[in-house]
Amino acid sequence: MATKTLNVGMIGYGFMGRAHSNAYKQVGQFFPGDYRVVLKAICARDEAKAKAFAEQWGYESFETDWRKLIARPDIDAIDICTPNNVHKEIAIAAAKAGKMVLCEKPLAMDTADGREMTEAVEKAGVANMVWYNYRRIPAVTLAKRLIDEGRLGRVFHYRAKFLQDWTIKADLPQGGQGLWRLDVAAAGSGVSGDLLAHCIDTAVWLNGAMASVCCMTETFVKERLHTLTGKVEAVGIDDACIFMGKFANGSLANFESTRYARGHKAQYTFEINGEDMSISWDLHDLHRLSVYDYKDESKLRGWRSIHVTDNSPDHPYMANWWVPGLAIGYDSSFTHQVADFLTGLETGKPQGPTFRDALETQQILDCILASAKSRQWVDVPKA
Amino acid sequence: MATKTLNVGMIGYGFMGRAHSNAYKQVGQFFPGDYRVVLKAICARDEAKAKAFAEQWGYESFETDWRKLIARPDIDAIDICTPNNVHKEIAIAAAKAGKMVLCEKPLAMDTADGREMTEAVEKAGVANMVWYNYRRIPAVTLAKRLIDEGRLGRVFHYRAKFLQDWTIKADLPQGGQGLWRLDVAAAGSGVSGDLLAHCIDTAVWLNGAMASVCCMTETFVKERLHTLTGKVEAVGIDDACIFMGKFANGSLANFESTRYARGHKAQYTFEINGEDMSISWDLHDLHRLSVYDYKDESKLRGWRSIHVTDNSPDHPYMANWWVPGLAIGYDSSFTHQVADFLTGLETGKPQGPTFRDALETQQILDCILASAKSRQWVDVPKA
Amino acid sequence: MATKTLNVGMIGYGFMGRAHSNAYKQVGQFFPGDYRVVLKAICARDEAKAKAFAEQWGYESFETDWRKLIARPDIDAIDICTPNNVHKEIAIAAAKAGKMVLCEKPLAMDTADGREMTEAVEKAGVANMVWYNYRRIPAVTLAKRLIDEGRLGRVFHYRAKFLQDWTIKADLPQGGQGLWRLDVAAAGSGVSGDLLAHCIDTAVWLNGAMASVCCMTETFVKERLHTLTGKVEAVGIDDACIFMGKFANGSLANFESTRYARGHKAQYTFEINGEDMSISWDLHDLHRLSVYDYKDESKLRGWRSIHVTDNSPDHPYMANWWVPGLAIGYDSSFTHQVADFLTGLETGKPQGPTFRDALETQQILDCILASAKSRQWVDVPKA
Amino acid sequence: MATKTLNVGMIGYGFMGRAHSNAYKQVGQFFPGDYRVVLKAICARDEAKAKAFAEQWGYESFETDWRKLIARPDIDAIDICTPNNVHKEIAIAAAKAGKMVLCEKPLAMDTADGREMTEAVEKAGVANMVWYNYRRIPAVTLAKRLIDEGRLGRVFHYRAKFLQDWTIKADLPQGGQGLWRLDVAAAGSGVSGDLLAHCIDTAVWLNGAMASVCCMTETFVKERLHTLTGKVEAVGIDDACIFMGKFANGSLANFESTRYARGHKAQYTFEINGEDMSISWDLHDLHRLSVYDYKDESKLRGWRSIHVTDNSPDHPYMANWWVPGLAIGYDSSFTHQVADFLTGLETGKPQGPTFRDALETQQILDCILASAKSRQWVDVPKA
Repeated sequence: MATKTLNVGMIGYGFMGRAHSNAYKQVGQFFPGDYRVVLKAICARDEAKAKAFAEQWGYESFETDWRKLIARPDIDAIDICTPNNVHKEIAIAAAKAGKMVLCEKPLAMDTADGREMTEAVEKAGVANMVWYNYRRIPAVTLAKRLIDEGRLGRVFHYRAKFLQDWTIKADLPQGGQGLWRLDVAAAGSGVSGDLLAHCIDTAVWLNGAMASVCCMTETFVKERLHTLTGKVEAVGIDDACIFMGKFANGSLANFESTRYARGHKAQYTFEINGEDMSISWDLHDLHRLSVYDYKDESKLRGWRSIHVTDNSPDHPYMANWWVPGLAIGYDSSFTHQVADFLTGLETGKPQGPTFRDALETQQILDCILASAKSRQWVDVPKA
Repeated sequence: MATKTLNVGMIGYGFMGRAHSNAYKQVGQFFPGDYRVVLKAICARDEAKAKAFAEQWGYESFETDWRKLIARPDIDAIDICTPNNVHKEIAIAAAKAGKMVLCEKPLAMDTADGREMTEAVEKAGVANMVWYNYRRIPAVTLAKRLIDEGRLGRVFHYRAKFLQDWTIKADLPQGGQGLWRLDVAAAGSGVSGDLLAHCIDTAVWLNGAMASVCCMTETFVKERLHTLTGKVEAVGIDDACIFMGKFANGSLANFESTRYARGHKAQYTFEINGEDMSISWDLHDLHRLSVYDYKDESKLRGWRSIHVTDNSPDHPYMANWWVPGLAIGYDSSFTHQVADFLTGLETGKPQGPTFRDALETQQILDCILASAKSRQWVDVPKA
Repeated sequence: MATKTLNVGMIGYGFMGRAHSNAYKQVGQFFPGDYRVVLKAICARDEAKAKAFAEQWGYESFETDWRKLIARPDIDAIDICTPNNVHKEIAIAAAKAGKMVLCEKPLAMDTADGREMTEAVEKAGVANMVWYNYRRIPAVTLAKRLIDEGRLGRVFHYRAKFLQDWTIKADLPQGGQGLWRLDVAAAGSGVSGDLLAHCIDTAVWLNGAMASVCCMTETFVKERLHTLTGKVEAVGIDDACIFMGKFANGSLANFESTRYARGHKAQYTFEINGEDMSISWDLHDLHRLSVYDYKDESKLRGWRSIHVTDNSPDHPYMANWWVPGLAIGYDSSFTHQVADFLTGLETGKPQGPTFRDALETQQILDCILASAKSRQWVDVPKA
Repeated sequence: MATKTLNVGMIGYGFMGRAHSNAYKQVGQFFPGDYRVVLKAICARDEAKAKAFAEQWGYESFETDWRKLIARPDIDAIDICTPNNVHKEIAIAAAKAGKMVLCEKPLAMDTADGREMTEAVEKAGVANMVWYNYRRIPAVTLAKRLIDEGRLGRVFHYRAKFLQDWTIKADLPQGGQGLWRLDVAAAGSGVSGDLLAHCIDTAVWLNGAMASVCCMTETFVKERLHTLTGKVEAVGIDDACIFMGKFANGSLANFESTRYARGHKAQYTFEINGEDMSISWDLHDLHRLSVYDYKDESKLRGWRSIHVTDNSPDHPYMANWWVPGLAIGYDSSFTHQVADFLTGLETGKPQGPTFRDALETQQILDCILASAKSRQWVDVPKA
C-alpha cells in the first residue's frame, strides 16, 4: 500500500496533458507501489480552460502562471507538456526550485539548450525524466530484453521509419492550438524533432550510440497561413527527413520520417537485423513483436508474430493488466513510464530516459539537421 | 460539466471488477457528460480483500454482504461481477430495491432464470444493462453502422469463432479463484456461456435473430481436481462447442468456440458475407476492421484493413481519445459501455444490451446446448 | 536421364486440361527422372478445338472419340479431365484396356460409382491417381511432414473452409462450357464435390479417418437459366455446405464451403490444433505455412509465417525450383503430382492419392449430403 | 496460330538459364501469338553440361563457344545469361552479327560499357531487351497502370528495399559456380548491381528519372576464400548499400539493399506515396498489391490488399492463366517478358526495358557507387 505521495503540477493541457493525466490516475490501480500520485495542480494561461481541465481530470487546483506553480511548496514534481520552445526555461526554473522534472520530448530546441537543462537537473540533484514513452510499449521492452540477453549476435542493420500523412493538406495553417508542431518558432524543427526523436531514442536504447550520419530534409509545402500573425508565411520546419549512418557497433542506420506518406497515420516501425536474430515492430499494431530466430530448426524458420499480452513475467508490464490475448492501448505506455519513474524513486535507480539520455538524442538531432544543411556527412560527438 | 452523480456499488473484485472500475474512472475524463460516476462501495466476502481493493481502486467504502450493499440508500446502481450462479438472486434483489442493475454476462444460468431477472428489472422500471462489451470496440461499432446503412445487401453467411488455449493443461483444477469458469456449478456451462455468448450477442445485434441451430460439444479433459472439494471430479462444462444454423434473414451460421486451440489466446473473430460487402474482425487486432466492398472499382477490389483510430466522427468513440494511428485497448470497450449507459440515462433511451437483449442470447445458448444433447436440430423460439 | 516414356492421352481440354498439360511439360525440366512424358493425344468432341489445343500445347495428335483414344496401343495412360458424370465410364474402360488412369477429382458421382472404378483399376492392376493436387503444394506437404513426425501431440481440432464468390450473380446460367459445375446432372453436387472434396482429401491425409458428420446445405439461388435447354430450371446443386463432425482420433471437425462469400476468390484454408503445435494454411498465400510451436520458449511463442521457398530438402519440392524467397504458383502443384506419380512408377510404390484413397473422400461426401438431407448425424462407414 | 519462328540461342545455363528456358517453353501455351519460340541451341563452355542441359530442357543443339553460336545462321536471337563481365563482348558481337539480343541484368559493368552496348544494338537495328523481369509481375504492372492513369497526384516519396540474408555465413567462398555474384571481377558490384538494379529499374519506370543521390555502402565480411584462386582474398563487392535522393518530379528516394538482413530471403519491396493514393508491393507475396486510396469514403479508408489473380483484363496477364484466387509464381514474370518481347516484334513497338532503358539504370548505379566512394551528393546526368 502506498505510504508516500508524489504531488504533481502539470504545465500544459493538450494531447500530452491528457495522456499524462490518465497515466497518473491509472498507475496506482495497475501498478500499486510505495508512492501515490496526487494531481495537485494544472497550469495553463487560459484560466477557463485550466479550470475546466482540472475539473474533468480531477486536479485539486489550477494555476495560470507556471512560475507560481513552481513556487508552490506543495508540489513535488513539475510535468512539462508545453511546446518545445519553453521547455528550457521551465525545466531550469523547476530544477532550481528543487522540483523533480518530467519533460515532454524532444528535451530541447537544440543540444546547447538541452545541455543547460541537463546540467541544471543534475546540479540540483532532482529526479528527472523525458517522456519517450515508446520504450514502455510491452513489445518494445521485450525487444530490449532479447537484445540485452545477447540473442542477436553481431548487428548489421537498424532501420526505423515514422510515417504520417496529416499535413498533406496545403490549407492547414501553422501555429496555434494543436498546430504549433508546424511552427518552427515553437517546435524548433518538424518531423525530425517530433517523430525521428522517438526513433532515435529507441535506437540508441536498443542498439547503442550513433557514430556518423548523413541526412536530407524537405519542406513540401513552402508557405502556410500562420494562425498567430494571420499572414501566409514561409514554413520553417522539415516536412520530411531521411538519414543514413553508422552506429558505433558498426551496423548501418536507415531512418526516415515524414508527414506526407498517404495512408500512414502514425506508423512508427523499427527493424534490427542481427546475425542470429532479427526483430521488428510497428506502432500500428503495437501489441505485436515480430521475431525471426535463426537458431530455430531450419525447416521451421519464419517470422513469429508474438502477441505480447500474456499476463505473466514473460511479457513486460502485462502481468498487471488483463488476460492473454487482450491488448492494451497506446495510453498504457505512459502509465508504465510513470510506474518506472516511481520505481526509480523507490530504488534510487533512475529508470530513464533521463535528461542525460535525452541529450544524446538531441545531439543526434542536431547532427542530422546540420548534415541536411551542409549536404555532408557529420560525425556524432561522443555522448 | 457533470451535474448528477451515479453512485455505484460493485459486487465482486476479480478480472471484471478491475475492468469495470477502470471504466468508471475513465468515463468522466474521456466522455464527460451530465453524470459523474462515484465509486461508492465494493462488496466481497473476504473483508481484507474488499478493503484492499477499495483502497487500490478508490472506492469510498466496502461491504462483505451484498444484501447490505443493496440496502444502502446511497447506492444508485448495483454492478454484478460475480460468478454466473449468483447473478439471478442479486439482480432480482437489486431490482426490487429500486437499484439500477449492470450485470456481467452471460445474464443467467439458463433462459428461465434470465426471464425472471428480465421481468424483475422491467417490473421495477430500473435501468439495466449486461456487459457484452465487445459491441463497444470501435471497429465492431463501425461494422454495425455499415450494416445499418444497408451496405451489405442480402446476407449469405455469418461466421464466428472464439478460440483460446488456456485449459489444455490437464492438471489445471476446476473451481476456486480465477477457475470458477471450469466448474459447472458456478459457471453453468463452459465455452458456450463464457465465449460463444459474446459471439451470439454480437451476431444477433449485427445480423438479427437466429431461427434454428444444430450443435455439438466436447469435453476433452474428463476429470479435474476440484479446488473446493479437494477431489478429482468429473468435468461438467463443455470444453469446445461448434454449431451451425440459420438466421431469420436466411443467412447461414457457423460458430465455434474452444479452449483447446493451441496458439490462440482470445481470438474472437467474426465475418459476415453480404451480396455487396463483406466485413470481418479479430479481437487479437481489435483496432482494425476488414472490409471488402464489391462496389469498388473492379480492378481495385480487395480487403481493406481499416485502422479504426481516427479522432473524428468517422470512427466511433475515437474522437474522444488520441490522434490517428494510436490504438486504444480492450479496456476502453468498458469505458464506452459505461458512457453509453450514462447516455441512456440522460436521454431515457437505453443503449443496450439490456437484460431483454441478453435474454435472447440466453435462449440461443439453451437451444445449442439442447441440440448438443439431443443431437438434433432445434428451432430457436421467437424472442 | 530419362530412359522410359509415358505416353499420355488426355480427355478434356478445359481449365484442368491446361493445368495438367503444363505439368506434363514441366516435369522433365524440373523433376527429371527415369520417365519422359510424351503428350501423345488430346481428345475432345469438337474437332476444331481438339486440333487447336493439340497445336497450342504440343500434343502429337488428337481424337474426337474417347473410346478410340483408349483403344490406341501407343497410349500408356489416360488422363480424365471431363465433367464428373463421365469419369466412371471412361475410367473403367481405360482400366479394362490396361491403361493407367489419372482422374480429375472428385473421383465419381457417388460412392457406388467410385467403388466400381476403384475395383476396376485394382483388378486391372493399373497405376491410378486422382488429382487432389493441393497435397503437393510445398507448404501443405511440409504440414504433412510435421504431423508425421508426431509434433502435434493429441489433436483437438481440424477446421477447413473453401470460400468463393463467383456464383453470387443470379443471372449466371447453369450448364455449358465452364459452367457445368452449376449443373447437377454433370457435377453431381455443388461446392461439396467441387471444393469440400479437396478439404476432405487433405484432412484425411493429415488427420486420419472421419467417424461421424452432421451437415447442412443451402441453395441460395433457386433457379438459373440452363444453357443446354435454354430454359430457367431449378438449381440442383448445393451453393453452400457446412458440416461438423468427429475424426477417428477424437478431434472435432468444422468444415465449410460456399460460392457466396463475397471477397474470397478461392480461399481454401485449414487449421489443425494439437496439444503441442498448431498449423494453418491459406491457398490465397499458398507459399506460406503458419506454425505455432508450444515447445518454443514461452516468451517467444507466436505464430510463425514460414515462407516455404528454400531450395533445400527442408522445403518439399523447392530444391528443384529457384532460390529462397521466390514463390512458385498454383500450377506447380500439378507438376509435383506428376513427378510423384512417376516416382511411384519407378519405385513401385504409388504415391497417392490413389482411387482407393479418393474413395474414402467420396464416402465422406456421400455421408455429408445424406446428413444434410436427413438433418441427422451420420456415421462414416470404415474405409 | 503461330506463323513465324524465333530461333533462340542461349548462353549460360544457371539459375537464369533455367528461368528463361521455362519462359520460352510456356509462352506459346499461355500467350499464343504470331511467333513460335524455338529453343535452337544452348551454349556453355563445359560440353557435358551443355549437352545435359540441352536434353533436359529440349534445346535442339548445343555449342561450347559463344562465337560459333553467334555465327550460326539459324539463330535469330541471342540470350545472354552469363556473369556480368562478359555481357558486353557478347552483346556487341551479337548485334554486329545482326542478331536480336536479350541480356540479363544489369546491362553492363558500368555506364561506359552499357553505352557501347546500347549504341551497338541501336546501330545494328536489332531488337533488344534487358531481363528486368519484375516489371512483369502482374501486381507491379497493375501499379504502373494506376500511376499512368494519374491516380496518385503529386508524389512525395518512393521507397524501395531488397533484403536478403544468404551471405551472412563468413565461410561462404567468393567466385565459382553460383557464387560469382560475390566476386567483384565477375559481378562488377555487389547488392547494388544485383539487387538495387531491379529496384531502380522499377522506380524509374514508375516514378521517372532520378535527379540526385547520396549513398553509403558497406562490406561486412572483408575477406573470403576465392574459389578460383584457392586463396583468401579481399572481398570487392558491396554487401549492403543505402542511398537517398531526389527524383526529377521532386519526390524523395530511400533505397536500401543488403544480403545481411536475417530473415529476409528475397524481400524486394517498394512503396510510393502520392497525394491521392499510395501503393506498395512485396516480392515475398508477389501476387498482392497494396493500395490506399484517399478518395475512398473517409470512414472506410484503409490499405487494400488486392489479390491480383482475376482472369479478366482487370489484372494484367492473368486472363491467360487460371481462375481467380490461384496465384502464379515468380517464374511467370519471365514468361510475360517474352510474351511482351514477341508483341514488340509483332507490332514494331519495343515493350522495354530496352538496352536504352537499362542504360539509365546503369547510370544511376554508377552515381550511387561514386557517391559512396566520395561521400558526397552526386547529380544524375540526364538520360
